Amino acid sequence: MTALIPPLPDLLWEPIIRAGLAEDFGTGGDATSQAVIRPGQRLRAVFRARHEGVVAGMSGVRLAFTLLDPSINVTILKEDGCRIAPRDILAEVEGCAQTVLGGERTALNLLSHLSGIATATRQVVDAVKGTKARICCTRKTLPGLRAVQKYAVRAGGGSNHRYRLDDAILIKDNHIALCGGVVSALKAARQRAGHLMAVALEVDTLDQLEMALSCNVANVYLLDNMAPDMLRRAVSMVDGRALTEASGGITPETAPAIAASGVDILSLGWLTHSVTALDIGLDIDL
Amino acid sequence: MTALIPPLPDLLWEPIIRAGLAEDFGTGGDATSQAVIRPGQRLRAVFRARHEGVVAGMSGVRLAFTLLDPSINVTILKEDGCRIAPRDILAEVEGCAQTVLGGERTALNLLSHLSGIATATRQVVDAVKGTKARICCTRKTLPGLRAVQKYAVRAGGGSNHRYRLDDAILIKDNHIALCGGVVSALKAARQRAGHLMAVALEVDTLDQLEMALSCNVANVYLLDNMAPDMLRRAVSMVDGRALTEASGGITPETAPAIAASGVDILSLGWLTHSVTALDIGLDIDL
Amino acid sequence: MTALIPPLPDLLWEPIIRAGLAEDFGTGGDATSQAVIRPGQRLRAVFRARHEGVVAGMSGVRLAFTLLDPSINVTILKEDGCRIAPRDILAEVEGCAQTVLGGERTALNLLSHLSGIATATRQVVDAVKGTKARICCTRKTLPGLRAVQKYAVRAGGGSNHRYRLDDAILIKDNHIALCGGVVSALKAARQRAGHLMAVALEVDTLDQLEMALSCNVANVYLLDNMAPDMLRRAVSMVDGRALTEASGGITPETAPAIAASGVDILSLGWLTHSVTALDIGLDIDL
Amino acid sequence: MTALIPPLPDLLWEPIIRAGLAEDFGTGGDATSQAVIRPGQRLRAVFRARHEGVVAGMSGVRLAFTLLDPSINVTILKEDGCRIAPRDILAEVEGCAQTVLGGERTALNLLSHLSGIATATRQVVDAVKGTKARICCTRKTLPGLRAVQKYAVRAGGGSNHRYRLDDAILIKDNHIALCGGVVSALKAARQRAGHLMAVALEVDTLDQLEMALSCNVANVYLLDNMAPDMLRRAVSMVDGRALTEASGGITPETAPAIAASGVDILSLGWLTHSVTALDIGLDIDL
Amino acid sequence: MTALIPPLPDLLWEPIIRAGLAEDFGTGGDATSQAVIRPGQRLRAVFRARHEGVVAGMSGVRLAFTLLDPSINVTILKEDGCRIAPRDILAEVEGCAQTVLGGERTALNLLSHLSGIATATRQVVDAVKGTKARICCTRKTLPGLRAVQKYAVRAGGGSNHRYRLDDAILIKDNHIALCGGVVSALKAARQRAGHLMAVALEVDTLDQLEMALSCNVANVYLLDNMAPDMLRRAVSMVDGRALTEASGGITPETAPAIAASGVDILSLGWLTHSVTALDIGLDIDL
Amino acid sequence: MTALIPPLPDLLWEPIIRAGLAEDFGTGGDATSQAVIRPGQRLRAVFRARHEGVVAGMSGVRLAFTLLDPSINVTILKEDGCRIAPRDILAEVEGCAQTVLGGERTALNLLSHLSGIATATRQVVDAVKGTKARICCTRKTLPGLRAVQKYAVRAGGGSNHRYRLDDAILIKDNHIALCGGVVSALKAARQRAGHLMAVALEVDTLDQLEMALSCNVANVYLLDNMAPDMLRRAVSMVDGRALTEASGGITPETAPAIAASGVDILSLGWLTHSVTALDIGLDIDL
Repeated sequence: MTALIPPLPDLLWEPIIRAGLAEDFGTGGDATSQAVIRPGQRLRAVFRARHEGVVAGMSGVRLAFTLLDPSINVTILKEDGCRIAPRDILAEVEGCAQTVLGGERTALNLLSHLSGIATATRQVVDAVKGTKARICCTRKTLPGLRAVQKYAVRAGGGSNHRYRLDDAILIKDNHIALCGGVVSALKAARQRAGHLMAVALEVDTLDQLEMALSCNVANVYLLDNMAPDMLRRAVSMVDGRALTEASGGITPETAPAIAASGVDILSLGWLTHSVTALDIGLDIDL
Repeated sequence: MTALIPPLPDLLWEPIIRAGLAEDFGTGGDATSQAVIRPGQRLRAVFRARHEGVVAGMSGVRLAFTLLDPSINVTILKEDGCRIAPRDILAEVEGCAQTVLGGERTALNLLSHLSGIATATRQVVDAVKGTKARICCTRKTLPGLRAVQKYAVRAGGGSNHRYRLDDAILIKDNHIALCGGVVSALKAARQRAGHLMAVALEVDTLDQLEMALSCNVANVYLLDNMAPDMLRRAVSMVDGRALTEASGGITPETAPAIAASGVDILSLGWLTHSVTALDIGLDIDL
Repeated sequence: MTALIPPLPDLLWEPIIRAGLAEDFGTGGDATSQAVIRPGQRLRAVFRARHEGVVAGMSGVRLAFTLLDPSINVTILKEDGCRIAPRDILAEVEGCAQTVLGGERTALNLLSHLSGIATATRQVVDAVKGTKARICCTRKTLPGLRAVQKYAVRAGGGSNHRYRLDDAILIKDNHIALCGGVVSALKAARQRAGHLMAVALEVDTLDQLEMALSCNVANVYLLDNMAPDMLRRAVSMVDGRALTEASGGITPETAPAIAASGVDILSLGWLTHSVTALDIGLDIDL
Repeated sequence: MTALIPPLPDLLWEPIIRAGLAEDFGTGGDATSQAVIRPGQRLRAVFRARHEGVVAGMSGVRLAFTLLDPSINVTILKEDGCRIAPRDILAEVEGCAQTVLGGERTALNLLSHLSGIATATRQVVDAVKGTKARICCTRKTLPGLRAVQKYAVRAGGGSNHRYRLDDAILIKDNHIALCGGVVSALKAARQRAGHLMAVALEVDTLDQLEMALSCNVANVYLLDNMAPDMLRRAVSMVDGRALTEASGGITPETAPAIAASGVDILSLGWLTHSVTALDIGLDIDL
Repeated sequence: MTALIPPLPDLLWEPIIRAGLAEDFGTGGDATSQAVIRPGQRLRAVFRARHEGVVAGMSGVRLAFTLLDPSINVTILKEDGCRIAPRDILAEVEGCAQTVLGGERTALNLLSHLSGIATATRQVVDAVKGTKARICCTRKTLPGLRAVQKYAVRAGGGSNHRYRLDDAILIKDNHIALCGGVVSALKAARQRAGHLMAVALEVDTLDQLEMALSCNVANVYLLDNMAPDMLRRAVSMVDGRALTEASGGITPETAPAIAASGVDILSLGWLTHSVTALDIGLDIDL
Repeated sequence: MTALIPPLPDLLWEPIIRAGLAEDFGTGGDATSQAVIRPGQRLRAVFRARHEGVVAGMSGVRLAFTLLDPSINVTILKEDGCRIAPRDILAEVEGCAQTVLGGERTALNLLSHLSGIATATRQVVDAVKGTKARICCTRKTLPGLRAVQKYAVRAGGGSNHRYRLDDAILIKDNHIALCGGVVSALKAARQRAGHLMAVALEVDTLDQLEMALSCNVANVYLLDNMAPDMLRRAVSMVDGRALTEASGGITPETAPAIAASGVDILSLGWLTHSVTALDIGLDIDL
């Protein structure tokens, strides 16, 4: 089976799954399984969707079981990025019953969170279909989970903004104020940034945009909290000399109108900061 | 200022904040600040609510700055558990501008997530006021964040269910099937569990409950997906010999009727798995 | 071969074995093997008991070799919890000589420590056979080793007390003094503890016990340093309304009389804090 | 106050104390303190000996509290290496009650274990007073605790053997068999060992010793399980050309006769592998 | 004193210094100091240049001592980026003699390595003075040290290339072959890269460059192993539509001619992969 | 294939390779491969020498790929310690193209650094052939890399000095000054050092050496910065009663004359602190 989206190496999933398992096993391990399940007993179970959406996090599911017991059998049936319908089987797991039940919660917690991100992203991506706009997340992620949350956005058809503070320059109002104005901030940025580092500038008004355009430094103009009409004028002012990005309270409902303004990117913090988990369950095959 | 709720030691916050800062600083640190801010420059900023809610995560906010620079000044004005209104100032931070801006995103990401949990919890707690029901979270938490997500539920006036698989027995349908019936599962649990470990049993029907009650083993009956009427009959069957807990799709709207059934606990997975971040911003004082 | 006791996942053994191996290999590895053993040379060796007892720690033994070299062959012949006699072979290891000798000390150090715990526990468990009393360890464990020390107690037929400070309430004299009395401490505990959290109370006198019983809150009364007669009176006062636990200087010699008092639990700190290693050696098969 | 023995830097104590605290605080922290102690409440407590002995581990005691709360006051009254009598106060701790009680068990667990090692070492050291023999521990330590267990031996007046596999060559019977004889093992060792690395050889018989002496390579002869008479002859054969070390089942009772044989070193595995914790308690000052 | 270059937060230095100290202290700590230095003894020492150059790594120097003992006094006299002459004093350290000598090697090892990088970078930067060319390092760094090696390049007046594989696209011959040609590789890159991610293309011939220019996708052309004449023609072909970067065996001697070709960037792997440590010593003030 | 030198267990290589890969993959992974390479595509590539030398680090090469994907095929053709000529193939790697290219830089960075150390060591070892002198490195290593840098010296035919501060006593001028003279320092060292710990003394003059010889304590005299004539006189003064070691600015050119003086060891800091990477490339087999 060919991956729908380029995978992340296990190296980036492992510490997250280890953290989840360690939180769940604590000092004594799974007291319930220890008390009521015979050690040698085996079990087969399936991850089944209870809601439609887009799946993300299957590497994490696999690791939640194989890190407990390398001999367990995990079969992935729906790759990350795949659209799923209610009752679809996403994966099968077969092995020692204590392992299957021991990894269940860690697997489900991450899978339903990341699939929730992918599903929401896909909803917005679909909403702007027909425009050139990309749907993008932000750095509003949860500590320890940025790599996989950003990956889930890609699984949903979205694109990523900065990964960190070190991979692009993003000049906001505070920087401008501290640096003594848009022009001096842009000049300082261009002069000191690495030659592979893009410079983005956040602007609130068309006057700011005009002043910034005169410098011809920024690669991206982040147009913050502008209505579609104003966005259209901004796009026309930039006129292809740089990329334009709309941000600020964008929802699946408002996205089409914003995308129709001609901006290149819509960025939405809530894709990663306010996630509704996708409902997925583990059904035991008894 | 006296804490409203018992605090968690920094020991439990530190690895989370270090993870968030490391994700943000990467290899090169904050490229924007390095390019446009003069090293010696100082800054004062305030965390300000943009929405009403309940605050949680102030230790994380403090550490997001002091782990970068121990000499920075952070003043907490609203303790965890405090109800806040839009425009309330939650904390002040004053120090080197590069530190203030460097810790901003890590601080906000955790604070708005945890305050989102506390706010949602408080909403349900308020909804069942006047009943004896406690509002409880589950193990549906995000890897690496369980300790602080569970803490945020407490900050919102809620209570915690199991912390891990090792601190209580919770017998579900799968365990029953694997063990050969409710009665044998309950007996095995009571016999093998530690003497300080509670035994909870999930039941779907009143028949199951009746059979379980005859054993007189479980400390808690988890009544899964039952309507208020059925809950009321279950509570009456248990008749104070154990605690009763309702679970399954409970919302702030349905909570009052469920709580009115007389159950002791309402447990809600979405308090931690589907969080809407509370809107909080960092306003620079220029 | 079916496990005698529910196993702990490797996840909980691995960091301990890695720590042991790292301490032993240091910077340069095994200087003796490097100097005197030819790289390709193979070796077969057996772990042999030199003393009778109960074995615990076989997962650690396996990992001490497989973490050095996954291709090594380790065969466990005596599972954790098994009674062993002098000269019994507990496990075989066959592979690269440098690996066999390199993992030897780490494997033996943990195995003989944990088997020492299991053996001592079994001795006390056997001493109270015929009574209903369980033998229990405490939180008097060594840093980093709590999970496996508590597991070794289970391997010896014992039971575990609290795992940590967060999984049960245990009110001692200091808490009572700080809280203003037994009654207010018990009430605060019951009100604020999670609904799955047991409340235990330590009492020194029968007067304290009487006052506490009137609250009907505690699940367990820890009867500290009481002689068998006094224990018998305490058990009779509690009369099955809660569990009773005896503690304080209990030895294999005094255990039978204490257990005969009718208490439910005997807890002994020395099972984990003052361990006599079980004498086990690695015999090379040349 | 001047240290009685050279201290270990906190760098080596910190991970051990963090591990102990993490095991104790788990996910939820100290449930008892949270339930029954008012957040602002302060407490003063003293560590008091209940048995005579030698103290070791005071840096760990200090860190068990300061890692929880840097503002706590810890005063060390008895330095590591100090002989103590029952009722002696070893240290005072004053601060937030939740911190004092939260760090108590971690502090006591390590302190009583290490003081147990120091006390036993001192007993054997005292037993051989008047001879030139040093008392030495081995690599029979617990995973993660080697640095502090070896330090505790020094605190008791003892000396350390190898720290790890990489800091000295120790040729045992297995190495000799694999290498094809004592002489070839010794030659290989001298040729390949670093120039600062001592070579020790374990011998069981005087014939082996004679053959080894002819090579004039070993710096130390480890005379395993020899009776005092045989040791005396071995010492006389070596005649100062190398150090002599007796090992094998040495107790405080047998040590004087063994030391009187003229050997330079007595090495005892049980100093670290079978430790009786020294009885020390934390008395609250109410 | 104002920093000459934007600092890296201690967060990025700490794990490196801890690793260095842990490697040096091992299990037993500094045996020499323990044997020959009186515990209370104090010492003052200075870091003194023995060679001219540029300093980098002073945060590491400070941490090498304060992580051992927070009460030590470290005074930095030459900030990172500063040119130094033989016999210049770079820093003073005063405190417990065991700490000063204990941190010495870790401090010197990192300081002389990073200052070696800064010195070499500065030499090339000075060699191309008067041209517009920037001097750049590559990803040819040592595992665990990338952040500080790249920082040292900045301290020497150089600039950084990609930090990692995730912050820019760099298409090399292997990618072109796997993707089926320059044009398809460039198109795939532009389409799938994040909107803030620069695309660089490595070309060996002017034909390749011409084909690439027709796509108008790449932000940077990496002109590999071209002689100055050929570079000049390449620069003229690009004509300001993208940045040009020369790489391949550039030395301080060849740099001026290469820079004179008009390229924007010279990138040199040896700045970080083949470092000559700057000679700096610690002189004790007795 | 038999190893030329005793290997280090993977346990010591793994954290280094994980650090390198984590630095390279960051948050998003390999953006170039993700953009231009089809997920299922496979690749075969060879590590080829571009310069003659001695290879070291092949375990690291293997792990750089297998830690990313255990199913990849890595074949080592030249073992550590092997002399290689330009165009020699050192290893083959075959598997998923994204893995081959993803591990390339981490593998090459470590391999070329360690092979650079082995090559330089071998050059000096060859230069002193015919004398009895060993070539030795020092503690001038890079943080986190000491174990593998010291190993690379052994791969080049050299020998190791102290691994850490805890495995031998090395008395330098500062220690002498603090201790009140050579004689008292030597006596303190001998008395307090472990019985397996060598004592080395650094001397600058023959007078110092004479005074030290009268104590008959040191196992090694480190003759610092002495010319060959003076070294010859020192060797003659020591006359086989201890080892002699020359240090201070030794190069491949000066080594023969120094070795001819009869010293036992030549120690050179630059073998590890000023390394020229050996030029090795990864050639894709298309």
